[in-house]
This record gives sequence, structure tokens and C-alpha cells, in this order.
Amino acid sequence: MNSVDTVTLQIDEGLRLCEAAAVRAGANPELAASIARAAVRAEAEGQASVGLGHFIDYLDSLREGRIDGRATPLITRPAPAIILSDARGGAAHPGFDRAFDDLVSTAKTFGLGLFVQKNAYTCGALGPFAARLAEVGLVGFAATNGPALLVGSGGTRPVYCTNPMAFAAPVAGGPPLLIDQSSSATAFVNVRQAAREGRPIPPGWALDAEGNPTIDPEKAMTGALLAFGGARGANIALMVEVLSAGVSGAKWSLDAASISQGNENPGTGLFVLAIAPALIDPDFSARMAAQLERLSGEYGVHIPGPGKAKASVAARLSGMTVPKAVYERITG
Amino acid sequence: MNSVDTVTLQIDEGLRLCEAAAVRAGANPELAASIARAAVRAEAEGQASVGLGHFIDYLDSLREGRIDGRATPLITRPAPAIILSDARGGAAHPGFDRAFDDLVSTAKTFGLGLFVQKNAYTCGALGPFAARLAEVGLVGFAATNGPALLVGSGGTRPVYCTNPMAFAAPVAGGPPLLIDQSSSATAFVNVRQAAREGRPIPPGWALDAEGNPTIDPEKAMTGALLAFGGARGANIALMVEVLSAGVSGAKWSLDAASISQGNENPGTGLFVLAIAPALIDPDFSARMAAQLERLSGEYGVHIPGPGKAKASVAARLSGMTVPKAVYERITG
Repeated sequence: MNSVDTVTLQIDEGLRLCEAAAVRAGANPELAASIARAAVRAEAEGQASVGLGHFIDYLDSLREGRIDGRATPLITRPAPAIILSDARGGAAHPGFDRAFDDLVSTAKTFGLGLFVQKNAYTCGALGPFAARLAEVGLVGFAATNGPALLVGSGGTRPVYCTNPMAFAAPVAGGPPLLIDQSSSATAFVNVRQAAREGRPIPPGWALDAEGNPTIDPEKAMTGALLAFGGARGANIALMVEVLSAGVSGAKWSLDAASISQGNENPGTGLFVLAIAPALIDPDFSARMAAQLERLSGEYGVHIPGPGKAKASVAARLSGMTVPKAVYERITG
Repeated sequence: MNSVDTVTLQIDEGLRLCEAAAVRAGANPELAASIARAAVRAEAEGQASVGLGHFIDYLDSLREGRIDGRATPLITRPAPAIILSDARGGAAHPGFDRAFDDLVSTAKTFGLGLFVQKNAYTCGALGPFAARLAEVGLVGFAATNGPALLVGSGGTRPVYCTNPMAFAAPVAGGPPLLIDQSSSATAFVNVRQAAREGRPIPPGWALDAEGNPTIDPEKAMTGALLAFGGARGANIALMVEVLSAGVSGAKWSLDAASISQGNENPGTGLFVLAIAPALIDPDFSARMAAQLERLSGEYGVHIPGPGKAKASVAARLSGMTVPKAVYERITG
């Protein structure tokens, strides 16, 4: 412990503590290991809102029945290049972890592979589902849904979750390109944080329960989030909805149960596409490296991805610093 | 002719006139038929900016060498589920038209199929590349690039084209869902139109040549377009760039030659993914129909796609009305 308010954990220690906590909360060993790895990875990459703090949501949901701790994924192959996972009321991660090697070899054999999943709890950080593919030389695209928070194009009531998408590509000699963004103008946690601090939110983030624009975070929380970039962003949310819930057969966001209340699994969907670019051009990742360097160096473009990779390296060296309250919920 | 300023053409007449004009401009019959179909379809769907008016750009480019009229696509299969087309300096459409049936059967066999193309002139309307897949029961996603017009995240100079993406899904008993949108806050043609009319453009559309925000359309045309929705929209442009130019091996937008000046083919890329959702769930398109009806009817969400389908039906009945100047350029 490095202060009264925070605790610094090494990666291995974080994994061990989270896994043990999940088992105590009712998770089978596979599920416990899978969600622990996901939360620790997100925390190490500097994504605190989907890191160890969010792991407490998993623990609560295991205890309260929103994640079935006994569930193991049922994996089938409806077509040669498609892997379908039914999470059967568990978390999103075990199905993907089980299918990962097969997804990679499918993409390397056919050029493409698709993992789709239904009946899962929300997946926390989405980026790693795409980034793990880029780490083995593939282009990855991921999309997921969850309980409705976001209005559609022209609407005033929530119909989609924040519906994030992630995109990753391998870059020779460096960390992958990694785009990981919600379809909302801001993440829900930022609205909640503003409410806690009594600060107004910027215009364009949310509507109140009557469908009027609001800068009051309390009103926003009973209203709805707005998409980024108007109709175009709302269309991205719709595309994510069709890919993650429509193609997989998962629940639409409108039908997904709460991730923090009640005892029902939200039953959300996940879509992860893998493409093997080296089958088209063995120099793909070298071309990517040159082009990203040019965009960044000559044109001042911010390239997403390296920041998370850097944070992850630092966490491996120096550990992860988390609020003491989070540490105590995990160990207590 | 229905007035001194416009001409009404039936679909078949439009196809015949465009095809003949392309042949006169130096196109081989396959190329002429392929670009004529694309321009007439866009015009019929109410997309005038990529319809018959844009066909004149093809004619000029054929005459001036930016589209090689003798080119035929070279199609190879680098992996069982990937079709690669080298347009060899021609237009974007012949390669896709040749590969279409094969792309559909690939997706229906493996679950997924990917068409990628390099060395082509820009493709005009992107939506139909995805919509044609939805019309045969597949989910389609398309992306393309072109000469640089749009700034990247945090940058001030153009590095991407407007980098559109299109997404289409089959809907039982109705027209497909069809999202077709650029990554820029507005299409370049809207800036050009404002310049012609001497109107200011809204803030947020463009930067001037020095990288400062501008509402002067003349300054915007020598500057750069801005992405929709800030960094998130610019990231979508980057994803489109990697998929369309990176994966295909086409020219990056920064390296693509002009589509209206000089005699060099812009050498742009095209990425079209096909997914067979009925292999996962035979009721996919029925679920889509129910959910889109619910989003639209109960929640007031605007569903993109049906408007274009309706315009197309009207054009089949009553023809397409185009400016007389456009008609004269095509027939003259």
C-alpha cells in the first residue's frame, strides 16, 4: 500500500486476488480466471472505468444472479468460418477465451473468421477483443450491446446501449493500432461522475426523461445519452446493434436486463471479426507501421492504441494503483 | 423533356445513353455497362451527387486518362474466403460486378466472404456495394477511400478522403436497412455548392489552408474537411482507411491522385464484407423487420434505407429528372 487512499498491486497479485474473489462469489474456475484476466488487463491499460472497479460489478452480479457462476459457454460452428458461443447466462469472456485459438486459425485458413456470442453479461472493455487479434497479426473488429441508454437517430428515448466498437490492426515493430470507442457522445460513467460531483455536463451529451436536452447530470441519468456526431453516430450505434445482437441472436438493447439490479442476465451480444491481411500482402503490418508513423510524425494525427500499450508496460513494471475501497471490496 | 431546364429519362434510356457515352469516351463494353448501371442506380435512388451528374466525371476521366477505358479487372483468390481484384487503373465497378456471384456463394458456403480491390477510380455511391448483398439475404459492410480531403484526429491538414462506410442488412418483407455515410461532417459537394452560391458554411465543417476553423466555403476548398463527431468520427475515417487501402494494398488517401485533374488513376481501394446471418439464425431477417418496425414505430427512430428504395420504385415508374446540362453532356 502506498497511501491510505490507494493500493498498488502487481499484475500477478491482481489476477490472483480477482480470481479468488470471483470463486468466492460463485464463479467456476474457468469463469473466474477469464473475468479476472479481462479486468486486470483493462486496469493495466489505464481503463479504470472497466478495470478493477468494474470487477466489483461482476462480483455483485455473481452473488445476485445476473451472472450465472456455474455457466460454461456452449460453442458451435454454424458455418466453416463462424464460431457461435451461447454464454448461457455467464460472462462474455469465457466463450471468447475458449474460441480464441480456433478463431485465429479459422482466419488464417479461410482469410476471415467470425466469433459471435449471445446470452452474456456485458463485456467491460471491448478493445482487447480486437487487440488480441492484432497481437497475432490479424485485423480485428468488435462490437457489443447492452441495456438501452442511448437514443436512436431522431428519437428521444433510449433504444441502444452505448454500443461500442473496437478496431485493431497489427503494426510491425510496435503496438497495434487500437480504436475503442462508444457510440455515445460520452461514456455513461462520465455522466455519473458529474452527478456525484454536482457539476453540469456539456450540451450534446444527454436528454432528460421528457426528451429535452439537459446539462443536469441527475436528469440525464433518468433520461438518455445522445450519440456522438448526430445522425451519423446514431447510425453507427444501429450498425453495432445489428452486428452484436442481430447477427448473434442476442437480446436487443431494448430487451436487455439491468447490469446492476435484479437477478436476470442481460443476455447481450458480441461480434468479433478477424481478417488475415498477410494472406493478401505479407507486408501489411510493415505498410501500417510506415503509414501510422507518417500520419503521426508528418501530419500530427493522434494514433489510438500505443497509449494503452505503454500504460500496460508500466503496470507490468510498477503495478496498478487502485482506490483502497476497490481493493477492499475485492479482498473482503 | 419536361421543361427547358430538366430532362426526364426512363431507367432503360438512362442506361443506354450512359453506356453509349462511356464507349464513345473510350470504355470497353464491360466497363461502360458497369459504370452506367452504378450511376443510374444512384440517380434513381435520389443520390444526385453520385448519379448522372457524377457520370460526367467518369466520362471526363476516361477521356483524360484517369480511368483506363481498356482496363479489365484481374481477380485472384488469396484465401478461400477472400476475393482480390486489381482494377488495373479502371473504374471500381467492373471488379465487383464480376466477383459478385462468387462473393455471395463464398459467404453462403463459409459464412463470410470478403471482396477487396486496389488500383481503381473512386466508386461514387458506396451504398449499393452493401445493399446488393442485403438484397440477396446477406449482411454487407463496405468502405472506400480516395484523394485526401479530411483531417485526422488532432491534425490540421487533409490525410483521408471523406472515407465513407456503408452497412446493409436484409429485412423480411421490405427494403434493406442501408446506412451510407461519409466520415466527414458534410460531403465535399455541399461545400462546393455553398461556394457557388456564395453562402457561408456552418462551423464544424472545415478548416482553411492554415488549419483554422472557417465558415468561408472558398477557404474550406483549399483547406480541409473536418470529421463528423470529432475524434470518434476521425477514428472511423482511420478504420475505413486501413480496411479499404491497407488491407487491399491500394494507395493511401495521401497518395491518391486527383479524380478531376491530371491523367493518373487515383488507385483507391474498396473493402466489401459479406456475412450470411441465416446460417446462424434462419429468422434473422424476420427479427430485423420486427425490430426496425419497433424502433421506428414505437420510438421514432429514423431507419435509413427505405427512402432510397422508395425513390428507386418511383424512378422505375416515372423516370429520373436530371438537369438539361447533364443530359447534354451525356448525349453530346
